[in-house]
Amino acid sequence: MKTKDNKIPEATIKRLSTYVNYLGRLGTDSNPVISSEILGESCQVSPAQIRKDLSYFGEFGVRGVGYDTKKLEAEIKDILGINHSWPTTVIGVGKLGQALLNFDFFRNHGFRIIAAFDSDPGKIGARITDEISILPTGDIEKTVNEKQISIGIITTPADWAQDVADRLIAGGIKGILNFAPIKVKVPDSIILRNVSITSELDNLAYLLTQKKRQ
Amino acid sequence: MKTKDNKIPEATIKRLSTYVNYLGRLGTDSNPVISSEILGESCQVSPAQIRKDLSYFGEFGVRGVGYDTKKLEAEIKDILGINHSWPTTVIGVGKLGQALLNFDFFRNHGFRIIAAFDSDPGKIGARITDEISILPTGDIEKTVNEKQISIGIITTPADWAQDVADRLIAGGIKGILNFAPIKVKVPDSIILRNVSITSELDNLAYLLTQKKRQ
Repeated sequence: MKTKDNKIPEATIKRLSTYVNYLGRLGTDSNPVISSEILGESCQVSPAQIRKDLSYFGEFGVRGVGYDTKKLEAEIKDILGINHSWPTTVIGVGKLGQALLNFDFFRNHGFRIIAAFDSDPGKIGARITDEISILPTGDIEKTVNEKQISIGIITTPADWAQDVADRLIAGGIKGILNFAPIKVKVPDSIILRNVSITSELDNLAYLLTQKKRQ
Repeated sequence: MKTKDNKIPEATIKRLSTYVNYLGRLGTDSNPVISSEILGESCQVSPAQIRKDLSYFGEFGVRGVGYDTKKLEAEIKDILGINHSWPTTVIGVGKLGQALLNFDFFRNHGFRIIAAFDSDPGKIGARITDEISILPTGDIEKTVNEKQISIGIITTPADWAQDVADRLIAGGIKGILNFAPIKVKVPDSIILRNVSITSELDNLAYLLTQKKRQ
């Protein structure tokens, strides 16, 4: 597969995620082939954009026919690196952490949650699934190291996030998805993504305010 | 306040949200004044960037002294439009919806959740707070209209999101924050923001995969 990695816009990766999500929800039995028009309409992207996004990674589909649904899904999963399982942990088993632990997405995609941590002694030992019970945050480093966990999802309050990130990194984590409403500092070798619900809401408020003031 | 709205990058708005969040967490009694250096270090932004971000909206702070912490917080809240309360509703009281309903952020910021909806008959009528009990999704249009709700937060499964969005819009909603892993269609008059947890995870997987392949 040809890739020109440095040139691939983040927006393309986001759209690939949307495409593969949609393809996964589509019944492949009744839709063995999908056109870029149909895929585009469902994902609210122009057919030309879809073709451009895919062109970064090679040749897909047959002109005038469309894409083999199952094959395209597998190919995008391969591009995104979700064609295999990433050992994942959630730290902070509040409501948001619980939401993620119960999130169907993980079961259907390339993320397997194999450990969960909390600092509340009242929660430690509680069973999440057959596989997982909640461990104390003091065990993060050891567990991440022993279980070779790649991805850490931080859903703690802001004040705990940096300490948790430091422990994950000490254990050898590769990537962090941070939901805590604070910037955590990580070395350049760690891939960090922030999901800031507060920032999205603030942005929404800003845009609504601008509209009002117009 | 001078604003050159069309030129303000989204990244600036995101950073303003980070600044105001940090300022709100800072004890103003012990920190009546803050320098752009300290604010920058805490938010992982250069002092020059902070000054540039603020310069879109006027003159702030005193050269060589810094910003009045409380005043800067109030001014950024004014810019973002979170200096007053946005009537907000959450639709879909699963784990993620519950997380948002319990989210401290709403209590501290300009978002007041005044209604919650779910389609599960077993949940309807359940009390969330003294003010709110869960209403059936069939009541969305009427409630949004009667209570003049501005912002709708969709935390339903993908298959319900479009229906819920349509009901919100019919009721007169102004902005939507969509957590459902699907693109919802809204008219241009509605401000829509998507928080795609799946897309962030896919992006993390992609970046980790690229690193491995290097």
